[in-house]
Amino acid sequence: MDFSRTKALFDLPEGVIYLDGNSLGAMPRGVPERVEALLREEWAAQLIRGWNACGWMDMPARLGDRVGRLIGAAPGSVVMGDTLSVKVHQALAAALPMRPDRRVILSDSGNFPSDLYMAQGLAGLLGQGHEIRTPDPQDVEAAITDEVAVLMLTEVDYRTGRRHEMARLTAKAHAHGALTIWDLAHSAGAVPVDLAAVDADFAVGCTYKYLNGGPGAPAFIYVAPRLVDAVEATLSGWLGHAEPFAFAPDYAPAPGVGRMRVGTPPVLALAALEVALDIWDEVDMGALRAASVALSERFIAGVEARCAGVTLASPRDATLRGSQVSFRHPQGYAVMQALIAEGVIGDFRQPDIMRFGFTPLYLDAGDIDRAVDILADILATGRWDRPAFHARKAVT
Amino acid sequence: MDFSRTKALFDLPEGVIYLDGNSLGAMPRGVPERVEALLREEWAAQLIRGWNACGWMDMPARLGDRVGRLIGAAPGSVVMGDTLSVKVHQALAAALPMRPDRRVILSDSGNFPSDLYMAQGLAGLLGQGHEIRTPDPQDVEAAITDEVAVLMLTEVDYRTGRRHEMARLTAKAHAHGALTIWDLAHSAGAVPVDLAAVDADFAVGCTYKYLNGGPGAPAFIYVAPRLVDAVEATLSGWLGHAEPFAFAPDYAPAPGVGRMRVGTPPVLALAALEVALDIWDEVDMGALRAASVALSERFIAGVEARCAGVTLASPRDATLRGSQVSFRHPQGYAVMQALIAEGVIGDFRQPDIMRFGFTPLYLDAGDIDRAVDILADILATGRWDRPAFHARKAVT
Repeated sequence: MDFSRTKALFDLPEGVIYLDGNSLGAMPRGVPERVEALLREEWAAQLIRGWNACGWMDMPARLGDRVGRLIGAAPGSVVMGDTLSVKVHQALAAALPMRPDRRVILSDSGNFPSDLYMAQGLAGLLGQGHEIRTPDPQDVEAAITDEVAVLMLTEVDYRTGRRHEMARLTAKAHAHGALTIWDLAHSAGAVPVDLAAVDADFAVGCTYKYLNGGPGAPAFIYVAPRLVDAVEATLSGWLGHAEPFAFAPDYAPAPGVGRMRVGTPPVLALAALEVALDIWDEVDMGALRAASVALSERFIAGVEARCAGVTLASPRDATLRGSQVSFRHPQGYAVMQALIAEGVIGDFRQPDIMRFGFTPLYLDAGDIDRAVDILADILATGRWDRPAFHARKAVT
Repeated sequence: MDFSRTKALFDLPEGVIYLDGNSLGAMPRGVPERVEALLREEWAAQLIRGWNACGWMDMPARLGDRVGRLIGAAPGSVVMGDTLSVKVHQALAAALPMRPDRRVILSDSGNFPSDLYMAQGLAGLLGQGHEIRTPDPQDVEAAITDEVAVLMLTEVDYRTGRRHEMARLTAKAHAHGALTIWDLAHSAGAVPVDLAAVDADFAVGCTYKYLNGGPGAPAFIYVAPRLVDAVEATLSGWLGHAEPFAFAPDYAPAPGVGRMRVGTPPVLALAALEVALDIWDEVDMGALRAASVALSERFIAGVEARCAGVTLASPRDATLRGSQVSFRHPQGYAVMQALIAEGVIGDFRQPDIMRFGFTPLYLDAGDIDRAVDILADILATGRWDRPAFHARKAVT
């Protein structure tokens, strides 16, 4: 795949260098047309018949298989729906009863807070004394013991881009009798993932970051085929039922990962995601990863050569990073605001981290060089040091 | 409000009489334009900045207040998100720990199966021996006893349109120390609901039926303001956190109903719903109810006068019905297929129920008369009796 040609598939604002596709991906050009067709030719024209006639009901499975190809999941082992937080809950609620004699959920202090919150909420609901351990990321491996019921990690750290070694940690978890839940929020569409090869138990992720599904696009969940028929689906909604339209009084789970479906699928969002996946269907993840590493290395080299006052917060070894690079700066928030004002969009995470995401589908070396030029100039001239750039916003 | 003028606000297919707005509402004409603006001017142009600059982050609360007006909920007591099944789980998971010494969840055999499935899933997860009782709808009132932790009912029966007396049942539940969860799937936008006046504890509902939010539009949840600060949000996602963007390691619930938010809001779906609510903002629910009853009564009278072989499955007393009317026919599935083939779209629920929904925003007396004409003619000529009309589909 020639990534210099894929940029034309995205609708990017003139003059903007977008280094925040790790937070919300850019819009594929085909989305408005597809969504309009969905609205006018499907919803308006077919009305209720759309569920069958337009294939809406099958979208969670059909799109799940297409996401699955990107993360090494066999057809029929991924399904779309809900939000990532809900999928974390489902995975954990499925996994914990499979280790009834254990009470430790092992995560790390670098996990995305919502994953930890969902674990806290579930542990509170269960009231069985589950303990959530969050050592620092580098100490996770040593913390995998026979006490651990579930190892629940986000592969790529949302702040630093540090990447866990999924294969090794999964193997060690299994050696100690623990199950694994991998959050692929910053992995799917960013780095090659092979869930089957690493023998992961559960995985979850979102589609609005690297996959470019749009704001609030649905999440996905993977369950290893060897486990799925033993999963008790506790968010046991009708669309995870073996026969949803029999309207039987008792829940009976659908075979396979279909039981992780809950309620009515979000058809508009799935239609937008479908267009994004048309692009991904053509992508070789190995080639994409090579392009991502090249962009990231170019950015690090440029920034370190020309920008004073910033410190690399990401691993220097590209094999230990996802597809983002973070730099610390004592006034990181203000510097990021100045960058955004000049058309270089990254984002900020407290206390001092400037994040830059690298998305080869719509970024090239020229973009990276211009971003470095602008950052270097902002820092050299101190023009980030204006009151407007220091005002805090709720979201960055 | 003059309902003869609101029909023009919807994009309905030529020649179709749509009596299935109780399953999936028709598309408001303004939706494609608004969604295209969202895609091109917000997602594509603003990218990550859309969360603040375009108000995406506040949509669940802002739209919740607008739905709240239709169901008698004070501003700040309703929030949008997820699916109805997930909201049922949240309400029940919040309510059960408030009655720790009780083990009975009282519902009825007419509840929508997904609500019962979600209760079964939660009861299984908790493992505390909760029992779900499902007497026939007419026996629910007598079954409210001091054993009941939660009375969980759908106000309007999805098959028959039978309507529970929310005020009386809520009062009796409270008299026995039980909490109430009302599913308003077939109520919101169909009948006047006054949650505050009946002193309901929790309510949930969907927006793709009478509210016309589109296929898979997000759900809503109401928590009585007097209760909400005692609610333990167990689906404790980051957007229900008091400070989501502080990324603190521990969950702390947002004040009020905001704690029932879970993950990232479905922005595309919310934008479509917003257009639908522009219409609802102008609707007086009393006037709408009067129009709905007039349409329903006209339909019943016409069908009973002219159609042989059908039996009314809905209460004859309009005050005991929602905004749908169901008739039984031994070959109801085939008859409904014949109706659909001739442009009268209702739907079918096993074993023999033909459902017809009445939506005054886009139906008038002429539509009802034509629907009766066509049904009478199909039954009189027996032209429903073709093999094609007897073939079962997964969804109707």
